Amino acid sequence: MFETLELGRKLKRKDFNAAVLTLREQLLALQFQLEKANFPVIIIVSGVEGAGKGSVVHRLNEWMDPRLIETHAFWDHSDEEEQRPYLWRFWRALPANGRIGIFFGSWYTRPIINAASGAITEAQLNVEMQRVEDLERMLCADGALVIKLWFHLPADIARERLQADQLRELTRIELPENSTEQFEQGYANLVRVSELAIRATDTGPSPWHLVEATDDNYRELSAGQVVQQRLAARLAEPPPAPNVMAPVAPTNGKQPTVLDKVPLDAALETDDYKQQLAHYQQRLETLAWQARREKLACVAVFEGWDAAGKGSAIRRVTQSIDPRLYHLLQYAAPTDEEASHHYLWRFWRQLGRDGKFTFFDRSWYGRVLVERVEGFAADHEWQRAYSEINRFEEQLVDHGSVLLKFWLHISQEEQLARFQLREQTPHKQHKITEEDWRNRDKWHDYELAVHDMVAHTSTARTPWTLVAGNNKRYARIEILKAFCDALESRLG
Amino acid sequence: MFETLELGRKLKRKDFNAAVLTLREQLLALQFQLEKANFPVIIIVSGVEGAGKGSVVHRLNEWMDPRLIETHAFWDHSDEEEQRPYLWRFWRALPANGRIGIFFGSWYTRPIINAASGAITEAQLNVEMQRVEDLERMLCADGALVIKLWFHLPADIARERLQADQLRELTRIELPENSTEQFEQGYANLVRVSELAIRATDTGPSPWHLVEATDDNYRELSAGQVVQQRLAARLAEPPPAPNVMAPVAPTNGKQPTVLDKVPLDAALETDDYKQQLAHYQQRLETLAWQARREKLACVAVFEGWDAAGKGSAIRRVTQSIDPRLYHLLQYAAPTDEEASHHYLWRFWRQLGRDGKFTFFDRSWYGRVLVERVEGFAADHEWQRAYSEINRFEEQLVDHGSVLLKFWLHISQEEQLARFQLREQTPHKQHKITEEDWRNRDKWHDYELAVHDMVAHTSTARTPWTLVAGNNKRYARIEILKAFCDALESRLG
Repeated sequence: MFETLELGRKLKRKDFNAAVLTLREQLLALQFQLEKANFPVIIIVSGVEGAGKGSVVHRLNEWMDPRLIETHAFWDHSDEEEQRPYLWRFWRALPANGRIGIFFGSWYTRPIINAASGAITEAQLNVEMQRVEDLERMLCADGALVIKLWFHLPADIARERLQADQLRELTRIELPENSTEQFEQGYANLVRVSELAIRATDTGPSPWHLVEATDDNYRELSAGQVVQQRLAARLAEPPPAPNVMAPVAPTNGKQPTVLDKVPLDAALETDDYKQQLAHYQQRLETLAWQARREKLACVAVFEGWDAAGKGSAIRRVTQSIDPRLYHLLQYAAPTDEEASHHYLWRFWRQLGRDGKFTFFDRSWYGRVLVERVEGFAADHEWQRAYSEINRFEEQLVDHGSVLLKFWLHISQEEQLARFQLREQTPHKQHKITEEDWRNRDKWHDYELAVHDMVAHTSTARTPWTLVAGNNKRYARIEILKAFCDALESRLG
Repeated sequence: MFETLELGRKLKRKDFNAAVLTLREQLLALQFQLEKANFPVIIIVSGVEGAGKGSVVHRLNEWMDPRLIETHAFWDHSDEEEQRPYLWRFWRALPANGRIGIFFGSWYTRPIINAASGAITEAQLNVEMQRVEDLERMLCADGALVIKLWFHLPADIARERLQADQLRELTRIELPENSTEQFEQGYANLVRVSELAIRATDTGPSPWHLVEATDDNYRELSAGQVVQQRLAARLAEPPPAPNVMAPVAPTNGKQPTVLDKVPLDAALETDDYKQQLAHYQQRLETLAWQARREKLACVAVFEGWDAAGKGSAIRRVTQSIDPRLYHLLQYAAPTDEEASHHYLWRFWRQLGRDGKFTFFDRSWYGRVLVERVEGFAADHEWQRAYSEINRFEEQLVDHGSVLLKFWLHISQEEQLARFQLREQTPHKQHKITEEDWRNRDKWHDYELAVHDMVAHTSTARTPWTLVAGNNKRYARIEILKAFCDALESRLG
């Protein structure tokens, strides 16, 4: 693959200068168009060490208006990064709509280095590249423009530019001696592994642009031109075609759903409840401290009908846990920073570190629940969200976190009774709004949405727990028990 | 001081329950008022170990609407936190306007523990407390309500609740043996140091509320009532009085300013420039890598007239530095998240870690420049900003960072020439807007603002560099030289 990048392409200073004059004008004009568009641009600057990637980053910043660019280098990793899934560090740096993020180093760097140094096998590299491809596909589906640049040097040029000890330091690959032979062997291996990674991720929406990096002028102009062409093409694209995916099942007429199976008459008497509450809360307290010691992260999602008792159930859980060990997040409308990113961004940014609990009171499932039912997300958007969510959750589980997902279920009659009670109780009146009554009218639409959500996202590794909530005592104990069981099965 | 908290105050369950019913209603009503108000609430939960602080945090979350609260625990510290000034970790957790942040552990915790364990002297504790007082005063001046709760236990009760080994683990204070005597000695010392800290920070805008913590009911109801009373009082306050501070010097008639001293005819010939550019860029490249190795952070602020050449000067600096080692930030209008925080928040949140350069293209000085001249900040707001900024920068310097501040100065005539050139050059047209021409009309107002800024914020430890910018070559070399000199004097 890289033979095409060892041709010795060059560009004279004069030609370079002339081309750059035009290019800058074009890039700036595109940037101002982009500023008003509702998608972000991610430019990935990758390639072998010594290829002048840093200089390309400088040039792009020089040629474009830096007020609309942010450059992020991913290199040494903080403990905050290491204690979260690998992609967290990239998510937190994703540019907002209308802006350009230059990623110097990226999600490719570590897998390639690890494979070249033998820390992971080629099969593992493929798994990682699959994940990267999924991420890019998802960002592109959401509108992002991902421009991937790979800069290549022939081995002899690389050898001139880089001593083996530099290569060793930069890549952290073990190279036993500082000899030409060692260098070439190490370098050839790095190139071979890079080729595997590139091939695996050279996909339709985010193809690789390979650039011969020997000549500075040629390299930098090529990079700039790729950015210009991709951005111009993306901005010239017609608006997305209307949704052509299969329509959802008709919502008229009651269809049986997975919720019908929830044993809503399950109940617990007060005495029994008190005893079990004390038991499980005590167990959970101990387990939470143990999780901290063993650096186990726990992520829990709470979804459910309005008035299903989410809040009070969450409190029974948090009561048992030292406030230093958990973070409770409530999700309503996004802030403007959040709204100008991918919908998963505002959840990624809040993920807790190892040893901590993160509780999501409403979550990323809003995409396939309220956003679907209310039409805030187009059909193709919420439909593809199932696999996006599955992949997100897989990363949590792969990182080693415990993931719990609860749907608190109640009957329509029970909801009505609770709504009425809320209206009559002074310190509960704020909990009942016009919107709750409106949501209630869409009960069956929500039922179908929950059914589809469970069908698509309850996997062996990331199962849903559907909790019978007509009896609050029963529901709370079910949830506490689920926490204890999940933690116990994971802790030593 | 704490004798008043060892009286054995108690509350019966029945009385507690009755009082809580009323309290919850009041708290909720206040929260919904707060949601529409434009200030944040910070509740600091502090006190001795074993006093039930965690339980108070749970209660506050239970009694109030958790959608408008966020709880942050400050306890173990990540390396990202340790590699920035101490207060960074708190700044990044400050609640937005209309919201309540519960700080479990706070800026008090570490200084108190350090003083109790002997890691710092009492004089040092006083310095730290002075800094804390400054911070709270600043937040309150900006409108924040800071509610500080201290929970106290008599030694014998603490002894019952806490073993010395727990005390040791929780506070990381060395207690050689697990005996009663050792415990009481350690505990007495902790209480003594806490008293010093409380006294030093028991100020008008953010007084301490001391709560006897022996009885659960009494402790929790007291905490809730303090929050209720302070919040009610704050919401009932009349809007701030009109600005009664001294008027600024009259702006009619040209006054000499510090800018008149800048030698604007300083210049550098092209050949000389090229040679010096190569020299200083090479030096800076080496120094940047050395700074990384020695974990030295560098923060640089670039301010100046429109068209003074800030952008191109910054580029001459960044060109010399590996993009992995710096972060360039451009500041224009705040996002809504930023606008609903203290004006320094959006700068604090972007501070780089040790070993990195953070470049601010426009900065916190906007408060005393554009915000003053355009009237975006009230007089008392920008006037108190000088000391707020000085204290912020002192923290950077105390943390060990190198701080550089540049004002790029040009003459009015030079600016006019550059504006005209920009209008004629296609790839520069975007740089010149109506606003630039409007700003130009306010030249003298800005001159005065710059003069005052330098007068108030150019200190021995945080000096301004006023750069003669009529000759761009001269200005660039001056700036590069300043970087090299500052870094060299600090690196081994």
